Amino acid sequence: MLKMTKTIIKLTVRDVRFPTSLEQHGSDAMHTDPDYSVAYVVIETDQGMQGYGLTFTVGRGTEIVVCAVEALSALVVGKSLEEIVSDFRGFYRLLTSDGQMRWIGPEKGVIQLATAAVLNAVWDLWARSEGKDPRKLISCIDFRYITDALTEEEALDILVKAQTGKQQRVDQMLKEGYPAYTTSCAWLGYSDQLLKQLCTDALNDGWTKFKVKVGADLKDDIRRCSLIRQMIGPHNTLMIDANQRWDVGEAITWVTRLAEYKPLWIEEPTSPDDILGHAAISKALAPLGIGVATGEQCHNRVMFKQFLQASALQFVQIDSCRLGSVNENLAVLLMAHKFKVPVCPHAGGVGLCELVQHLILFDYISVSASLDNRMCEFVDHLHQHFRSPVVIQNAHYMPPKDPGYSCEMLESSVQTHQYPQGQVWKKLQ
Amino acid sequence: MLKMTKTIIKLTVRDVRFPTSLEQHGSDAMHTDPDYSVAYVVIETDQGMQGYGLTFTVGRGTEIVVCAVEALSALVVGKSLEEIVSDFRGFYRLLTSDGQMRWIGPEKGVIQLATAAVLNAVWDLWARSEGKDPRKLISCIDFRYITDALTEEEALDILVKAQTGKQQRVDQMLKEGYPAYTTSCAWLGYSDQLLKQLCTDALNDGWTKFKVKVGADLKDDIRRCSLIRQMIGPHNTLMIDANQRWDVGEAITWVTRLAEYKPLWIEEPTSPDDILGHAAISKALAPLGIGVATGEQCHNRVMFKQFLQASALQFVQIDSCRLGSVNENLAVLLMAHKFKVPVCPHAGGVGLCELVQHLILFDYISVSASLDNRMCEFVDHLHQHFRSPVVIQNAHYMPPKDPGYSCEMLESSVQTHQYPQGQVWKKLQ
Repeated sequence: MLKMTKTIIKLTVRDVRFPTSLEQHGSDAMHTDPDYSVAYVVIETDQGMQGYGLTFTVGRGTEIVVCAVEALSALVVGKSLEEIVSDFRGFYRLLTSDGQMRWIGPEKGVIQLATAAVLNAVWDLWARSEGKDPRKLISCIDFRYITDALTEEEALDILVKAQTGKQQRVDQMLKEGYPAYTTSCAWLGYSDQLLKQLCTDALNDGWTKFKVKVGADLKDDIRRCSLIRQMIGPHNTLMIDANQRWDVGEAITWVTRLAEYKPLWIEEPTSPDDILGHAAISKALAPLGIGVATGEQCHNRVMFKQFLQASALQFVQIDSCRLGSVNENLAVLLMAHKFKVPVCPHAGGVGLCELVQHLILFDYISVSASLDNRMCEFVDHLHQHFRSPVVIQNAHYMPPKDPGYSCEMLESSVQTHQYPQGQVWKKLQ
Repeated sequence: MLKMTKTIIKLTVRDVRFPTSLEQHGSDAMHTDPDYSVAYVVIETDQGMQGYGLTFTVGRGTEIVVCAVEALSALVVGKSLEEIVSDFRGFYRLLTSDGQMRWIGPEKGVIQLATAAVLNAVWDLWARSEGKDPRKLISCIDFRYITDALTEEEALDILVKAQTGKQQRVDQMLKEGYPAYTTSCAWLGYSDQLLKQLCTDALNDGWTKFKVKVGADLKDDIRRCSLIRQMIGPHNTLMIDANQRWDVGEAITWVTRLAEYKPLWIEEPTSPDDILGHAAISKALAPLGIGVATGEQCHNRVMFKQFLQASALQFVQIDSCRLGSVNENLAVLLMAHKFKVPVCPHAGGVGLCELVQHLILFDYISVSASLDNRMCEFVDHLHQHFRSPVVIQNAHYMPPKDPGYSCEMLESSVQTHQYPQGQVWKKLQ
């Protein structure tokens, strides 16, 4: 029998954790001891091709995501890549709307993270094989539940219009890269001295946009914001991030107290599910010139749709692993463009920078055609574990040149950090 | 050493599934082949007491919830019941806001279902040992993120006011029971003939309120609604349930076509996450006298808060296993009371009727003091597997008399239905 298609014959998933909590990297008001981790997926075709995917987690519970990926694998193994991408919308819905498994989501939590890991691997495999035109991309999006905000025709129209000037933007990106901001200087667990040192280094490296974690203690926040504003001067950009620490009223009061340090945005002021709460906060802070940013824990396109409809955010923070892979991120990028809200992706963690750079470059080149008020988060951690780590030059993401979705990790890193049997974890036990 | 407290020394969880898909019980527009299942939890104290808890699922994926319960068990085992209930709010937050595991929720999806299963067992254990006054109950609620809608003081005030007439309502419930409606007659997969037969039987048994599944095919829906309205006559109550099948505009058009059959509500017209969508549907259907009901897949108090704030539903359908146990259901009952929206619980599945009868009796006796537009769902499936199954008399839930939260299953049922090793599943393989 002739094999005309690439059939996926195997899916493996591993629980890979980095003991970042030992040094308070990534600490914030709600996640005080994160061990940056991934559920790491490899799919293999009968022709020996591989696709790599992952979703990001912060330690305990990664085994639950692994369990969910294993449950989804039955829907993937045995399918050909051609079969999947010829009706990617249908395949997306197969994973997210399985008549039994959707009960434990739907399209949220562990099951959505697992979907992202699996689909990221499929996109990685697909990315290595061919180009995608606007119509093809639209066919990947599940418009269910969002047609009251964006129809398929409107989406296609956006992509077709953005063909103008595309090559120019590609050339610009290849030359300059996409603007980034850094979160590496001011994690909540860092001392003032370390913060100062990291800030000085970052300024020397050309960084102009800085994010500070806040929300645990107002006095501390005032001191830290004052310190960093002093370090970076009045013309560089400061953002603050509370990681969901506050109630609605509390958020307004607290951020008002920090207004004198001129933050561009307050990120995750309250529950990531509270659309109306974010709308109230946005309204209250608008006169102070402070926007609201959220999205890293916004679990699907339906939530983003409402955040946009309710003017509840001024910066859309997509996440490559929280949403259902490229498919769902495309829906959000297009909605954000329609609602004229800039997208500033969430990154950091493990692999999030590697993945999301593709999405934000796509946003600039093929959707928004604008850099106004736009930048992509960067955290300088754990890139050394990737086959094609991000390249940052003068505080800009330089476009990745290797084929695929940049998810592939070094096999040695995976083995050393596998939980609980890897060498790193054995030593810690 | 004296043992003054009941320490939880063991937690076990099992994957128990019933092959209900074989006969299309429970089938609807989105869940076409559910195998009703539970993640079944038993906790044991050093004094030999046991607490039983569960969360409901519909088959595949139950193993993921089991995995999540196992991950949470480390936070439970070793704690005493007294320690837990003396700061139940804190314990609730320990489970829902663990610095690492919250990433894969937060407070949603698999992790929230697992939280419900564990806490249901704790409530079962606690329920067997003592009474609870209003102040104690308030101390179980996590008010984080809902203080803009309901403060602790307001909540206490509601409970204190409802002390008036309490004994009278208790006596009334003991005598008459709580009004119920039936969903057993009209699952989507049933033939017209079966629907007619079941309807006739139900009318003979005293049922006056009936729910029909809709949403897959408009012609079918018209035929089925017409048939059931004819069977039950103009004065009995009809509700329709689309199980999230539609987009917003589609929901309005479709339900308008069914308006002549005078449904009291349309349940789950669209995505359970779409607060603003439900608000638009509510507004459009109000002139037709049709309300919107939702909640069985509404994953936390923050979502219910917004549904209430946005006037997006006219019937609150709490679920004993989707929300984080009694703790979070208390918050929702109190908010619903403040917003003057009746609570009509979701039930059915496995054990949901057994659990939720406690909550709705509590709502009547200690919160709302009203039966206006209120009723609790009933589905006549799988009760025989419980130690203390619900008792229905003349279409009313009769108050449970055994101590605890009615979660305990027959050990023989658990063993026979354990997945995949139980006898029932071995036969099917």
